[in-house]
Amino acid sequence: MADLTNVLQTEHPILPQFTQRRSPRAYTAQPVAAEALQRLFTAAGSAASCFGEQPWRFIVGSKATSPEAFEKILGALAPFNQTWVKEAPVLALAVAKTTFSHDGNPNAWARHDVGQATANLAVQAVELGLQIHQMAGFSPDAARAAFAIPADFELVSIFTIGYPGPADALPDPLKERETAPRTRKPLGEIMFEGGWPSVQGERYDQAKV
Amino acid sequence: MADLTNVLQTEHPILPQFTQRRSPRAYTAQPVAAEALQRLFTAAGSAASCFGEQPWRFIVGSKATSPEAFEKILGALAPFNQTWVKEAPVLALAVAKTTFSHDGNPNAWARHDVGQATANLAVQAVELGLQIHQMAGFSPDAARAAFAIPADFELVSIFTIGYPGPADALPDPLKERETAPRTRKPLGEIMFEGGWPSVQGERYDQAKV
Repeated sequence: MADLTNVLQTEHPILPQFTQRRSPRAYTAQPVAAEALQRLFTAAGSAASCFGEQPWRFIVGSKATSPEAFEKILGALAPFNQTWVKEAPVLALAVAKTTFSHDGNPNAWARHDVGQATANLAVQAVELGLQIHQMAGFSPDAARAAFAIPADFELVSIFTIGYPGPADALPDPLKERETAPRTRKPLGEIMFEGGWPSVQGERYDQAKV
Repeated sequence: MADLTNVLQTEHPILPQFTQRRSPRAYTAQPVAAEALQRLFTAAGSAASCFGEQPWRFIVGSKATSPEAFEKILGALAPFNQTWVKEAPVLALAVAKTTFSHDGNPNAWARHDVGQATANLAVQAVELGLQIHQMAGFSPDAARAAFAIPADFELVSIFTIGYPGPADALPDPLKERETAPRTRKPLGEIMFEGGWPSVQGERYDQAKV
């Protein structure tokens, strides 16, 4: 079932799974079936990676089937995030292997490639009527300790997985953000054919400082 | 038109744009129309990002419409990559803004989010019959100098964009790699429900060292 809340409007047509992808805070209580989770993480694993390393690992905590892991991931989040995240049915912790397996050297693309995997997962989620919400606001030390994650793995993000629900249950400031239109930089601010746009680029960056 | 070379076989069904995505080295000479490029980079820009920063920037060099930029990007690549990349119709250089625009602090998710944008672009490419091939083997210093990219932007990757062509034109070792089946780690090695799999994880990592 398509989620048509805050569909991104774009000048140039793109896949509906991109325009319908968003980062909701309100979810229904509906659990996410094991097969759906397997499809999500299979999509993540299909991403490209430097040297084919596939540096992505994901710890999953589901209220329905692995509630202790759910609570551990929840406990690593910033208190503000916990207030709404606790209503989601599933949480995942994205982890990056920071060294190459073929030679042990540092992998400077580990976080980049975990990003690629998570982006694929988010798109596959939309296809299944699900949405995810990625968060950077958590304690990597707390999450590492809770799951005894080895030192050569870096903790990258925590995200919810669930079926989007009505915004009514959210506190007021979050309710407004949930229903605000999604916007993006104009294409001319991110795609530069022919060279770096020194004049426009500088003007843009100055405006944002 | 679907590219059905080396389609990824998965136990759990995922979007065909994921299974048909690959990283070819052989391209036809067909140029990529401006509208197609605009759709690719619009898809990239639709990705999620930390604080909505959208840290991704892309310099595009097209043989047909911006040949000087194409040559500059090509020149930053490792010599081995140049041998086949020079046949692609379009090159792009992915760049990450390393500081947050709202407060100037370092953005530890910049490369991660450029990864998310590039993954979206790769999937949109498949939808349009195109494919991309990302490379880490290039000189960031040479690319920065060639385009006068400011210091607070990090050079992340270079990728080809084009319509996949027959592998015959590639030199022998690359021809074999072009037609080798795509494989991925089993799902159980990247998705851990309930906690970090200390035993399996250690065994796996030892095997790879």
